[in-house]
Amino acid sequence: MYLEDLRVGQRFTSGTYLMEESAIKAFASAFDPQPFHLDEAAARASVFGGLAASGWHTAAATMRLLVTGGLPFESGLIGLGGEISWPRPTRPGDTLRVESEILSILPSRSKPNQGIVTVRSITLNQNAEKVQVLTSKILIYKRPQPLTEL
Amino acid sequence: MYLEDLRVGQRFTSGTYLMEESAIKAFASAFDPQPFHLDEAAARASVFGGLAASGWHTAAATMRLLVTGGLPFESGLIGLGGEISWPRPTRPGDTLRVESEILSILPSRSKPNQGIVTVRSITLNQNAEKVQVLTSKILIYKRPQPLTEL
Repeated sequence: MYLEDLRVGQRFTSGTYLMEESAIKAFASAFDPQPFHLDEAAARASVFGGLAASGWHTAAATMRLLVTGGLPFESGLIGLGGEISWPRPTRPGDTLRVESEILSILPSRSKPNQGIVTVRSITLNQNAEKVQVLTSKILIYKRPQPLTEL
Repeated sequence: MYLEDLRVGQRFTSGTYLMEESAIKAFASAFDPQPFHLDEAAARASVFGGLAASGWHTAAATMRLLVTGGLPFESGLIGLGGEISWPRPTRPGDTLRVESEILSILPSRSKPNQGIVTVRSITLNQNAEKVQVLTSKILIYKRPQPLTEL
């Protein structure tokens, strides 16, 4: 889909992604080495009450789900920024999916072939509980024109 | 540092983190498999004009810098959410650092031993150019009271 194919209120659903315990610990080890992401006993004693994925791991998994079909934008998913929150933790063994909705579409005034789409992407676990809410601004292009029309 | 040690306007600087090309491609392969994060030629032809790290990789590297001294909160960095933007791409070979500033401190009314701190963390490359601006809400605790005071 290109800019001209989108409309406000359109919804998209991604495939699924399993958050394995080993992957949660590996990600945390590399990027968020805090006890509640790395060690079950420490996690039980923490505010999380058990091992929890780094929020940035949930964000990264969400991006994978969006890029691999969750948001079928032909020109790619080039994010300019957005708002993110984690209403509850992602747990080992959770299977995530992402439901997205187009909130607004803003064609560029200076660059006629592009625009910015605002998308809300809600990441859910297998119990349909929200583990992340991301509202992002994505750069999107119009369908390339065939050369014969030039 | 605990909740009572913080004040609005306080600033913190992290260590540094090298974004290696192999790590950029490995992260993108796992979480953001788009051509401009994986392949130099495709990236040159894209809006990035050359290989660029996934924004989520920049976010993850930023978290590592914050956790490993960039924000020395004794009770850990438990993020509730925030706003993120990527004013320019992170490139292979960039050395990142994070400069943070406390924007607000909100003690909890219902839980006297905790509060929420809003922190702006700016991730800079070796040329002091902003590659990410993150404003996050972090759960923070007061200093644990010695048992002798109970």
